Amino acid sequence: MELVIRCKAAVAWEFNQPLVIEEVEVAPPQEKEIRIKIVATGVCQSDLYFLSKCSNQTAFPVVFGHEAAGVVESIGPGVTEFQPGDTVIPLFMPQCRECRLCKSPKTNLCVNGCPFERSRISCKGRKLLQFLGTSSFSEFTVVKEMSAAKIDPAAPLDRVCLIGCAICTGYGAAVNTAKVEAGSSCAVFGLGAVGLAAVMGCKAAGASRIIAVDINPDKFEKAKVLGATDVVNPNDHSRPIQQLLQEMTGGGVDFSFECIGNVEVMRSALESCAPGWGVSVIAGWTDMENFSAPPIHLMTGRKWTGTLFGGEKWISASEPAASGVTYLDRKLMVDEFITHNLRLEQINEAVELMKNGRCIRAVLSVSPQ
Amino acid sequence: MELVIRCKAAVAWEFNQPLVIEEVEVAPPQEKEIRIKIVATGVCQSDLYFLSKCSNQTAFPVVFGHEAAGVVESIGPGVTEFQPGDTVIPLFMPQCRECRLCKSPKTNLCVNGCPFERSRISCKGRKLLQFLGTSSFSEFTVVKEMSAAKIDPAAPLDRVCLIGCAICTGYGAAVNTAKVEAGSSCAVFGLGAVGLAAVMGCKAAGASRIIAVDINPDKFEKAKVLGATDVVNPNDHSRPIQQLLQEMTGGGVDFSFECIGNVEVMRSALESCAPGWGVSVIAGWTDMENFSAPPIHLMTGRKWTGTLFGGEKWISASEPAASGVTYLDRKLMVDEFITHNLRLEQINEAVELMKNGRCIRAVLSVSPQ
Repeated sequence: MELVIRCKAAVAWEFNQPLVIEEVEVAPPQEKEIRIKIVATGVCQSDLYFLSKCSNQTAFPVVFGHEAAGVVESIGPGVTEFQPGDTVIPLFMPQCRECRLCKSPKTNLCVNGCPFERSRISCKGRKLLQFLGTSSFSEFTVVKEMSAAKIDPAAPLDRVCLIGCAICTGYGAAVNTAKVEAGSSCAVFGLGAVGLAAVMGCKAAGASRIIAVDINPDKFEKAKVLGATDVVNPNDHSRPIQQLLQEMTGGGVDFSFECIGNVEVMRSALESCAPGWGVSVIAGWTDMENFSAPPIHLMTGRKWTGTLFGGEKWISASEPAASGVTYLDRKLMVDEFITHNLRLEQINEAVELMKNGRCIRAVLSVSPQ
Repeated sequence: MELVIRCKAAVAWEFNQPLVIEEVEVAPPQEKEIRIKIVATGVCQSDLYFLSKCSNQTAFPVVFGHEAAGVVESIGPGVTEFQPGDTVIPLFMPQCRECRLCKSPKTNLCVNGCPFERSRISCKGRKLLQFLGTSSFSEFTVVKEMSAAKIDPAAPLDRVCLIGCAICTGYGAAVNTAKVEAGSSCAVFGLGAVGLAAVMGCKAAGASRIIAVDINPDKFEKAKVLGATDVVNPNDHSRPIQQLLQEMTGGGVDFSFECIGNVEVMRSALESCAPGWGVSVIAGWTDMENFSAPPIHLMTGRKWTGTLFGGEKWISASEPAASGVTYLDRKLMVDEFITHNLRLEQINEAVELMKNGRCIRAVLSVSPQ
């Protein structure tokens, strides 16, 4: 019989308070669950959103963290696709393979997706909640078998962890959701990790013009590394950004991406698109406000859509290995996103760096591999 | 040299006032223009929108009317595709075939589209404005060569006039814009002529379930004739229509259509769609208010778009003949839309019928063929 593991985790006890490094107890995996030793985790804006931005959609106490990589420590009864020692990326979008959504090739949604549910982690006698089925801000975590994907064991976990959220979200927004076409023009709003990954996706798809937009010019250098052909700071111009982009492209971009989670920017991104065929994709998370726009923007043939995890659908344990491969082949740039390497104990420092826009991604070293 | 024609037209002198049957002067067609004897015209909600709903987007005095059929009376210099005697449908969406939009197969927009411009019609010494490049509420009108399409001379003009707006708008919304798939589920909101045409388009595309939604149950019988498998009156249910449709379809329809021009209904239509792949098309015109919705509705993979004239792109004088053919072959039901036959002089009666939802389409007999 598996034993309870005592280890460290960063616990969020209350809304908008610093995380606390606590000793926690991680119960053994139950039916169709696996226990993972988390080796590295990124800190994502979505963690911060629920930790400190949107009080009515969140729940405490909880262990955040959903962009990680680790090693399977033990498996529960009925697990068929993993064994101890497998290197894995936890999936914040599960794939049960049985629901109406999983059975459709058109979406990567699964009816089992859930922001907060019971975890196998407890602290000081209290059960903690699991965030997005993952909870990677812990040395060990237990996830459902459907919430993990095997990766190439040669891939460095302290880097490919970013494939578990930001990189797939942005890259997939361009490649899977928008289906960016070769020779097209694109605009990417917001140059955090998701936006930079969207730039990379646009380049991979063969876009001939990739306009990177941010009010923080410190992000521009990295955007150019990832493929931006133009960089624009809306604060440098008196006219609205959508008008500027319409002018720059002779009528609007073919594809635009909102990678911030700001409803005003969502509208600007839509309005930057060409009438007739422009596609605008919402990739930045917010659920605090509604977007709005005049119907004519859509009636003139623009398409507005969005994405979670970039439409990536890792439906078998073998497929996700491709993510390790694409990293190792340098088909995906990943190292370029990592601006800070910290330890789990320094998580509040990482949170501050993210809040202040002073990093793209801080990767936390959690357990030694 | 061509002569000025003196004839009758229904003139809109002021916002929200009855139209006035006046004797007008219709100047000869100039360079690349044709003068058309209008045989029949429908009265469309878009005429009423600019006549009496939205004061800040309209201009007077003007001759409304844009859903018509007629016979070319004379042609101006440089006209190559028409000759006197051709039967035509005026196009409120021109096709110059030269602009960036016309050159793209992705859209039926043309940079020359314009709601109000100078007409060749004058009355009591005043130049009247032309509505949507057509102005069919007149016994004769002059349109640009790019704003007309030849049709099969065997097609009855007092019926196929409806192909000039409502029928293409709704039918094309389903077939061209949404690309409704065989076996799919659809919901159509609003069972005016555009909505009924959308029902017909869904059926032609092979949808297995077509849910027709209206608060006026008098529309249901006609919806069934055109292909609706279910009819729903939101007022018969205490829960929101989008919830009802989600329940009826086990998770949402594959395609939905807003055919009213109401921003609240636009949101309901979006929310009735299945997460993951649902496509919602705005086909009902309004430009008075913005729609709004939570970003999550799009981030979960729904697509929101819209259409003008159903994406129909009549790019050569020979192609539109198909519209006459599809009518004559009964591939398109058209007669079913006509609930009232009136004369041009009775136009204010037709306006009232449309305002009160007591007709689908009133077709006005304008000139004898």
